[in-house]
This record gives sequence, structure tokens and C-alpha cells, in this order.
Amino acid sequence: MGISELFREKLAVVNIGVPLFFNDLEKQGHEAVQVDWTPPAGGDPRLIAALERLEAVSGRIEEANRQTFEIINAAHPYLEGIGTARDVIPGLEGRMLLHAGPPIAWPRMSGPLRGAMIGAILYEGWARDASEAERLAASGEIAYSPCHEHGAVGPMAGVVSPSMPVFIIHNRTHGNYTYCTINEGLGKVLRFGAYGPEVLQRLKWIETELAPTLKKALELSGGIDLKSIIAQILHMGDEGHNRNKAGTSLAFRALAPFMVQTGVDREIIRKCLVFIDKNDHFFLNLSMPACKAVLDAASGVPYSTLVTTMSRNGTEFGVRVSGTGQAWFTGPANIVEGLLFPGYTAADANPDLGDSAITETAGIGGFAMAAAPAIVQFVGGSAPDALEYSKLMYQITYGENGMYTIPALDFRGTPTGIDVRKVVESGILPNINTGIAHKDPGVGQVGAGLVKPPRECFEKALLALAEAL
Amino acid sequence: MGISELFREKLAVVNIGVPLFFNDLEKQGHEAVQVDWTPPAGGDPRLIAALERLEAVSGRIEEANRQTFEIINAAHPYLEGIGTARDVIPGLEGRMLLHAGPPIAWPRMSGPLRGAMIGAILYEGWARDASEAERLAASGEIAYSPCHEHGAVGPMAGVVSPSMPVFIIHNRTHGNYTYCTINEGLGKVLRFGAYGPEVLQRLKWIETELAPTLKKALELSGGIDLKSIIAQILHMGDEGHNRNKAGTSLAFRALAPFMVQTGVDREIIRKCLVFIDKNDHFFLNLSMPACKAVLDAASGVPYSTLVTTMSRNGTEFGVRVSGTGQAWFTGPANIVEGLLFPGYTAADANPDLGDSAITETAGIGGFAMAAAPAIVQFVGGSAPDALEYSKLMYQITYGENGMYTIPALDFRGTPTGIDVRKVVESGILPNINTGIAHKDPGVGQVGAGLVKPPRECFEKALLALAEAL
Repeated sequence: MGISELFREKLAVVNIGVPLFFNDLEKQGHEAVQVDWTPPAGGDPRLIAALERLEAVSGRIEEANRQTFEIINAAHPYLEGIGTARDVIPGLEGRMLLHAGPPIAWPRMSGPLRGAMIGAILYEGWARDASEAERLAASGEIAYSPCHEHGAVGPMAGVVSPSMPVFIIHNRTHGNYTYCTINEGLGKVLRFGAYGPEVLQRLKWIETELAPTLKKALELSGGIDLKSIIAQILHMGDEGHNRNKAGTSLAFRALAPFMVQTGVDREIIRKCLVFIDKNDHFFLNLSMPACKAVLDAASGVPYSTLVTTMSRNGTEFGVRVSGTGQAWFTGPANIVEGLLFPGYTAADANPDLGDSAITETAGIGGFAMAAAPAIVQFVGGSAPDALEYSKLMYQITYGENGMYTIPALDFRGTPTGIDVRKVVESGILPNINTGIAHKDPGVGQVGAGLVKPPRECFEKALLALAEAL
Repeated sequence: MGISELFREKLAVVNIGVPLFFNDLEKQGHEAVQVDWTPPAGGDPRLIAALERLEAVSGRIEEANRQTFEIINAAHPYLEGIGTARDVIPGLEGRMLLHAGPPIAWPRMSGPLRGAMIGAILYEGWARDASEAERLAASGEIAYSPCHEHGAVGPMAGVVSPSMPVFIIHNRTHGNYTYCTINEGLGKVLRFGAYGPEVLQRLKWIETELAPTLKKALELSGGIDLKSIIAQILHMGDEGHNRNKAGTSLAFRALAPFMVQTGVDREIIRKCLVFIDKNDHFFLNLSMPACKAVLDAASGVPYSTLVTTMSRNGTEFGVRVSGTGQAWFTGPANIVEGLLFPGYTAADANPDLGDSAITETAGIGGFAMAAAPAIVQFVGGSAPDALEYSKLMYQITYGENGMYTIPALDFRGTPTGIDVRKVVESGILPNINTGIAHKDPGVGQVGAGLVKPPRECFEKALLALAEAL
């Protein structure tokens, strides 16, 4: 129809982006629809150019992402045993300490990471007291390396020292192994940067009584199916990162009969059972290496734009992408927004810390909050928020998990496989829920909440992917 | 304004009830709003008269219901021990067998209830085989009595015989005790009317190994707080009737350390742990007597119109109300609509059976399905349905539970305290989810689903309440 006819009909206006025109129409009493819109990648020409270069090979990328996603779905992690870190973790030797997040040297380490390093040095007997440990830590005689570069993960500071017992997780589909320490409980614990006598005493008890008991039980068990447990706990109000009450319960049920079957002294077994029962985060140190076992297998697929690591050392946030293999893309760690324990203020909080965002990277944790509405009592927000957090993540992920489903979304698979392109193009950042450490060494946890990665990690990754073409 | 002015304005029509006028307006192109409405109590003059008589003393009823609801909220059930039925259950003596639901004599008993009676007679050694047991059962030499009249409850057939071990639950707030057998697991089990050798063998093992071990563990425990466990499992995807996976897990965690602490042989402890771990309905036989302990305390408040019992014997559904004490108001049990196990059809299903509707009566089970969206995989329907079932129940209940909350409804208390007046007036019946037994003796479970009580139970109760004035 001709332009003159157009104006004979009732005016129908849809305004996209900047709302000035919409506002004028509204003032004049005309009906109009305003659509929120921002240009892709925030309008940044470098990023748009990179997206366009990737778009030119979108067929190859799509095929690589499909392959990566299939690996993630097919991976099947089992808890198979317990070993001493130096014996089982590849490359952990001499005076080396592993830590959460991307690589970092002592001078740039945050308080809780330093606190955990001091604690680990004391635990290893490399120093007699905290000040000697701190001098040694800064001396250059200690080698620091990310857990993630050794098949390991650790919550919060994530410090692993050579004598520590670690869970051994085996991805039976793809053959790779991952490792994680045994969760110490809440309050004053090494992973939150505390290193007092009670912290070290607990670590020694874990080494001498708990770990040997669990090791014998696991030998009898033939391996515990972590993929099955994670699938079940998503129907039991856990999301596998900050709610692990169901996971801890199912692991307890799986382990207890075998613990009784070992020849270990009954009183030690009883103490071990009580220790696990008193710590609803026991399962976190199993959900994390289970996710790591899945994602390590999915790393290194050429052209794949799916994220295989998100991790924080308390100073920087680091991302790794399947198609760029072991390269880290980092940015400053953000402050966690959430609920602080009584007596603490925002000024006490350390920036985002820990390898635990491996759960979100694998499609659980903050991505599965719709499965765990009760978590909002711990990290803040309301139950409807928890639903929305999960729904939003479908916009930046490759697909729906084939094994992990969310009952409240009518059993939809969890949003899985973060696509760097989608994050940069949409500006929607991954939703992570996490604990909050005190910024000073030696204090411990001060709260829990929600946090997002810095945008630049994904932007750098995108540029590197385009560059590599 | 005058009637002539009325018709100068645009016609605004709200039509209530019969839609004929609304339909005409719609046909003529006029806008109108149709409000679904039915007369209170289905327009039944006897019921309306009874509601009016109760309305005349609504102040006293309101005060009685407030008091009843306060008792329900204040009650605090603990699992305190295990005893032999004949030693601990008041009035269970000689050749008496307890059963689920309202009173019923042998000739009117349904197949699964008969099957369980046959099994119990064999278990007690009162007969040498099934046909001798059946003759004895019909001979008049066996006394039958409802569990509910002895402080006891039982799932499905709910048969309790004198030698059976039973959990002892103590409402520490009000001092009353309740009792329930130990859950046998799924498949061919006594409560679904099976009585084969494997059923009797399992019951004997429960009596000789499991019960003594749990009894010793409970002596060491000082009592296990069932109110706290039920509050937790509603945040873990259970509703305490057909989903008890979290409840079983938390009970397992609470019991295992004390079981290890007993002097019982390790292999027996291991077998007991494996037995509990293999049966996610273990906790049903604790959630039920916990609810019974709450509601028994709330029974007998004069003028109270709140329901204290809903229960079925496979032939009839029975309701008891606080203000009318021990009197039963019965109607024919309905057929359960739900999911049948492969190989079975609706023709195999027995009508509604079991004391387990005590959970709905106490504000959990079908009333708390919004807390357990994954249950729809077992009883049918979708996750949004589960939300709606709970929401609807607020319309027929006195208030929101002070301890039991539903995360997905932003931690609203569960709908608690069914008011007979509201049920009759609104026509909304309580929502119960339940197992389905085969209609023949000796077979077992064939499915699970949703069911409603017959309306007449509530109508009879209402008339009795009005009559009593």
C-alpha cells in the first residue's frame, strides 16, 4: 500500500533501542511499544569484528561446539579413591603449593589466599610459626601453581599441599582423572584463609583418620557414581555449589555401609560419620572435581567457543575456553553481593575466590538455582529470583544437559556449555553463587552471595578465538 | 444517578453463576465478565442449614480452631525408641490385628487388606499356611481394630500384629505417644497385601536384626527430632508422603553414628544400613506417626471444626474431626488416579488405602507438593500442577504451618488444619497423593497417584458438628 494509505490506519509504533521517540509519542497520547535493545557486544567495533570473523566459520564452530557438548554430556565421573596429593597429582612436587584460580605470584595474592598458604606451609612443617611461614612464602622458595593446571580443583583458596589427602575422581567415559581435598567444614577453615591451631589439628585428623577410613571404604565400594548423585540432588533442593545438603546425604548413605565393612576401629568410624554428618558442604569437594573431570575432557576441541574453566584466585577471575586450550583470559575479580554473617560489613569481604565456579561451568551451581529455591536463604534473593537466574542462563549456553534436570522447570535440562560468543554478543554474564572470605588472612568465611565474572575475560577469549583463525 | 443515566454509559456486565445471560451478551457482541460461581455446599439445603447453625456460633468455633491450630503448631514429635507392639501399643492384646482406616469387619475388607491380614496371621504363627490363615481370619476368632484407635498408624493395609516391632514417637510438647511399624521397602511387601515367603522372611529379619539394632541406637541417641527433619526435607524435594528420599537420608545420617556406637555385630550393622539405604520410603513410617502425634494432641477440642484424621481401609474413607473426637465419618473409598507400573491396568487397582493421609491432615504430603516437584514423575501431572495443588489447599485450611515451609512459594507455611466448613462450603476436597495396591490379596503395589476423599465424609462431619450444638 502507498505511504498515504499507511497514515489512514491507526498508528502502530514499535520503537527499538534509545527511547526518546517512544517517550515523545507517549507524551502525545499515542500508543507505542518500546523494545529494550542494545547493540551486540555493547557496540564495541573490535568485538563486533571478532564476532563477524567467527560468524564466517560458524559451521565449523557449530560442529566443534556440538562435539564439545557431547563430551560434556557423555562424561561420567566416579569417586574411585583417596591418595596423597604428591603421589597422585601430576606435577605436584617439592615445595609446591597449588591454589584456586588463574596463576598468581605471592605479591598479588589476596589475604585469604595468603592465609591458606601460611596454613599449608605450617601443615607441611616447612616453618615453625606463622611469621616464619609468611617469610618463606614470600622468599621465592615456594612454587605456586593453579590447581586447574594439575587436574585439581579447590573451593575458595583451594590450597593443596603435597601431604594432603585428595579424592581421586575418574571420568570413566574419557579416562581422565581429577583431584580435590576433603572438605573441612564451615567457620575457621584453611580454604577461607584461617590457619590457627584448630585448623591445622583438623587437617591432621583428616589426614590420619578420616582419609584412611574413606580410602578403605572406597576400595570396597568399587567406585561411587557422582553423575548419578548430582542428577538426584538437583531433584532434592541442591544445586551442587552452595547447597550440598542432599549431596552430602547421598554420599553419606553410599559411604557408611562400606566404612562399617572396613577393619577400622569402630570409634574412628563413628567419629568420621559424625564429621561428615556435621558438614553439609562435604559434597562440594566431590561435585567440584566431578565437574572438572567432565570439562577437562571437553577441553582442546579446535574451534570450540564453549567455556571449560571459570575460576578465581581472590585477585583475578580467569576463564579458559575449549578451542584455546590451556590459555587463561583474566580480569579483576568482582565483589560478591549477598548475605554477610552478623558482625561483618561489605568492607570485610575479599573479592571473588575459588575454583568452585567449575560447577556453573558444567551447568549446575548458579545455573541450576531453579532446582534449589531454599538456597536464597543463604545467598540472598527470593525463590522466584532463583527460577529467573536459571532461565536467563539458557541464553548464553549451548544446550540443555542430558542428565541434570530441573523439576521446577518441568524437568528441563540445566543450561550447559557457556558459549563465549553468546556472552559477549548478549552482554549476559554467567551467574555464580559463592562463599565470601574475609579479606584478611587468618579470619575465615564472612558470608555468601552472588557474583558475576568480569566481562573482559570473555571479551579477551573472544578476541583470541578470532585471532587464532 | 437515575436509571436512564445508567444506560447512557457504556454497558458493564458481570454475570455470576449460570452463564446463559453472559452467553447471550457475548453473541450480541457486548463485553461481559463471567464469574464461575456455585452456591455454597452445592446448594444442599441440609448442609446450608448446618453451615448457618455453625455460623451462629462462629466466635466459639474460631476460638476452638485457633486453639487446635496452636496445638498443631506447638506439637514436637521425637523418635524415641522401638518396642514390641503388644508391649507398647495400648489395647493391642490377644489375637488382635490393627489395620489402616476406619473400622471394618472381614467380610467387607478389600483384597490387599485381607492379604496383609493373612500375612500377619502367618507371621504370628497362628496358622500353618495361607488357606488356614484365611479361614481363621474369617472365623471371628481374630479381633480387628483401626490403628488410629490405638495411637498407631500404618501405610497402605497398615496391619500391626502383636509381635511386630514398632517405632515409638513422643510428642514432647503434649506428652502423647504414637506408633508405627518399620517400612519394609517396595515391591512385594505386607502393607500392599503380599504375604509370600520372602515377605515373611523380611519381617522376621526386621524383628530379629534391624529392630534390635535401631532400638539400641535410639537409646544412645536421646531421641531424634522428627519435626526438625520434616522441616528440612520440605526444602529438599520431599513432601513426606510419597517422596521420602531426603527424609530417609536425614534419618540415615542421624542413626548411622549411633548404630556404629552400639555393640551390635558389624556385619549386622552393615546389613541394616544397606537395608535402609535401599528403601527411600524408610522415612514414611516416621513422618506418619510424627503427624499422628501432632494431630492426636489436637483431637477433642470442643467446637473445633478442624480435621484430625483422614484414613482409608481400602473399602471406606474415614474422617475424624477435633470437635467430635473419636467419631468416624465415612464414605466409599475412591479409585486413585495416577501412574501404574508396566503390565498393570486401572482394573487391577484397589480403591484408596492406608493411614498415610495423616500426612495431608497435618499439612504435608499432597498439601506440600509444591515443595516436591519431582514427585510428579511418580504420581503423575506436571511440576506447575504440584504448585497449584498446594496453593488450592490454602482455601480449605485454617492457616499456614509455623515450622513447615515451602521454598518455591517463597517460604510460605504449608496449608495446615483442614476446616470441614471450608471443604463443604467451597466443594474443594483435600488433595492426597498415595500408593496404589493391587485389588487381589498377595500381589502388592501396582502404582501411585492422586486421590480425593469422598465428599460425604465431610458432609456427615459437618452435620454432626451442627447437631452437637
